[in-house]
Amino acid sequence: MNDVTPTTPEGTNPGSQSALRRLNEQRVLDTLGAQSTLTQAELARATGLSSATISNIVKSLTAQHRVQTAPVTSSGRRAQGVALLDVADVAAGIDFGRSNVRVVLAHPGFRLLDESFRSLSIGHCAEESIVVAAQMLAEACARTGIKQQELLGAGIGVPGPIDHRNNMVIHGAILPEWVGIDIAGQLRSALGIAVMIDNDANLGALAQITWGEHQTCEDLCFLKIGTGIGSGLILNGALYYGHLGITGEIGHATIFDQGAICRCGNRGCLETAASTSTMIELLAQAEGRPISVEDVIERALSGDSATLRVIDDAGVAVGHALANIANLINPEAMVIGGPLAPLGDFLLAPIRRGLNRHAIPLVAENTALHMSMLGDRAEALGAVALILRKYRSTTIVQLPDATNR
Amino acid sequence: MNDVTPTTPEGTNPGSQSALRRLNEQRVLDTLGAQSTLTQAELARATGLSSATISNIVKSLTAQHRVQTAPVTSSGRRAQGVALLDVADVAAGIDFGRSNVRVVLAHPGFRLLDESFRSLSIGHCAEESIVVAAQMLAEACARTGIKQQELLGAGIGVPGPIDHRNNMVIHGAILPEWVGIDIAGQLRSALGIAVMIDNDANLGALAQITWGEHQTCEDLCFLKIGTGIGSGLILNGALYYGHLGITGEIGHATIFDQGAICRCGNRGCLETAASTSTMIELLAQAEGRPISVEDVIERALSGDSATLRVIDDAGVAVGHALANIANLINPEAMVIGGPLAPLGDFLLAPIRRGLNRHAIPLVAENTALHMSMLGDRAEALGAVALILRKYRSTTIVQLPDATNR
Repeated sequence: MNDVTPTTPEGTNPGSQSALRRLNEQRVLDTLGAQSTLTQAELARATGLSSATISNIVKSLTAQHRVQTAPVTSSGRRAQGVALLDVADVAAGIDFGRSNVRVVLAHPGFRLLDESFRSLSIGHCAEESIVVAAQMLAEACARTGIKQQELLGAGIGVPGPIDHRNNMVIHGAILPEWVGIDIAGQLRSALGIAVMIDNDANLGALAQITWGEHQTCEDLCFLKIGTGIGSGLILNGALYYGHLGITGEIGHATIFDQGAICRCGNRGCLETAASTSTMIELLAQAEGRPISVEDVIERALSGDSATLRVIDDAGVAVGHALANIANLINPEAMVIGGPLAPLGDFLLAPIRRGLNRHAIPLVAENTALHMSMLGDRAEALGAVALILRKYRSTTIVQLPDATNR
Repeated sequence: MNDVTPTTPEGTNPGSQSALRRLNEQRVLDTLGAQSTLTQAELARATGLSSATISNIVKSLTAQHRVQTAPVTSSGRRAQGVALLDVADVAAGIDFGRSNVRVVLAHPGFRLLDESFRSLSIGHCAEESIVVAAQMLAEACARTGIKQQELLGAGIGVPGPIDHRNNMVIHGAILPEWVGIDIAGQLRSALGIAVMIDNDANLGALAQITWGEHQTCEDLCFLKIGTGIGSGLILNGALYYGHLGITGEIGHATIFDQGAICRCGNRGCLETAASTSTMIELLAQAEGRPISVEDVIERALSGDSATLRVIDDAGVAVGHALANIANLINPEAMVIGGPLAPLGDFLLAPIRRGLNRHAIPLVAENTALHMSMLGDRAEALGAVALILRKYRSTTIVQLPDATNR
């Protein structure tokens, strides 16, 4: 399920017991401290150590989170630049779900340091979630020995469209309790660090090109299917925000003219056909008792025909909506996220059918369709990436040997 | 209807009869010849002429197409840079419609020099249109005294999606005769100059931010309603092409689940509900005789109720499709182009209703909706802009006093 390996805090033990090794490591660290970023070749010349030794030391220091590497151009050729990683060069990602909070800490080298998850009561107020998130972040910092006030910042994911003019969740969001609240301001006060706030589906999209398997993808659509349905767009290699920041809102695209009335006041919206709430409701009605998303997944995987039919119908509706997106923006890849990801092909196959049916054939053939490999963690990983990418793009500009880029 | 004033070739008469004026003009031209680009203040210093005289001379030389002005930064302040305009700094725009060709010539200052229009038989082959376009371009060059081989290039608009991997019109286009033909290659041979090819709706979008009233708009959707329906997207200030170049294809978005069968093989597509062919067919059936787009416009403007009903239904369907686009990419403006533009509010009002009904309220409220002011000329103006923008962005980089930009 995961292609991100969460690493536990370490680095107190330099890894090698040999005094010579420690001495050489210190020499590399001292050289980097004086020189900012150097390539491995430059490090070898500056320290007099062999390329093989430098390579081993850089590997070890990277594992200890004491240096980071990033591609640079040296004398017109591409190389790995090595730079000191201050313990303060850590960012937080906080993802608020409808009924939970996830907090991660990561380095600019995009290596996870800590991750935690906590449930919230449904219908919790925004203030309550903020208190929980602040507590979780403080605990994460304590676990990793990081001073919270030295964090680069916290990226924040919220499950609703955000008006970029005032940073507020707009009306119609899945969390009506959050509408009109200055979440960024309250979090900034509660956490004592800089925050950047974004919609969860946007962050899911950012996670795909940062931590996922789509790091070279320039145009990608991430679709999150949950209680609500929303998408995030990567266009020309960056998150796309449009005029007000309210993009990717396809949950209320009409799929069935005469379909069910939606909470938005319209009818036949994609959410009425394919949200997890709709699936749960259809199956619970038939059974006469409440069921959960986990039940839906378990029954589908065990071959229950009613569950598979519900998933199939939802998938075709999602594929139809994705076809309209594909015809419009012609992405290289579309990635499905949210709690249904474990369904794999049970969900992906009907989505592909809907996509093929409604998209221009050449577009359908050339659009990769995947389940997100990042599972429920995509949004929190995207949230921390929001801060790290900003930081990284700033530091890369300052690299002395990156002028040929 | 037009906010572009086509200027007739002139410039042989310098405009002023005074020998002193001619002398001063020549002094300005000589100074520019030696110095590339100068601001008006620099021109005044270099020639010893007063600011008012320089201002008048620059105005007169601009009208004669002998100099061009473009914004530059001088000593950190924004100013108008003045540079010599070689007669060779002219580009062509050629727009192929389903039954006509339009050819324009323009300067990098985005001033039209020549414009011509010719009808083609329906079902003409691509080769025939290319011969006609080549002839029209040769005539335009003869009229304006421009050497064709010195043109910067020709931007070409074709009414169909283009696969950017091979520059070919893809299957499903309005002009099946053009599918799989190397139009760019054939035009390059026929015209003897560089060509850039693009989809007509893309060029219509480019025209809006180049010649139209949306020059400061970063995110715009241009929708062309004709025999087919397609859109062009300006995202973050530039034409958006996606993965293969096949963007904005909303003519086959399903609007009515159980609607009419479309030429694409699907049913209820936007084109079956709102193309000019659909409108004509509906009205012709009722009358029992063929009618034209011009008839539709004339009857609507004279208040014919059947025509108004057909336009109203089509407009609501278009608004529905635009709402899906607006929810996805949240543009600042949506502009309607194509032959129905003269209908004005008769078409715009139902489109606005459909948009308001299906878009997220905050998005609907904040999306400007207009008829294109460029009429049938939008695509040809966009075609020439394709070349001029490329050229302008290249030359601006070379301006000596633009380094602070």
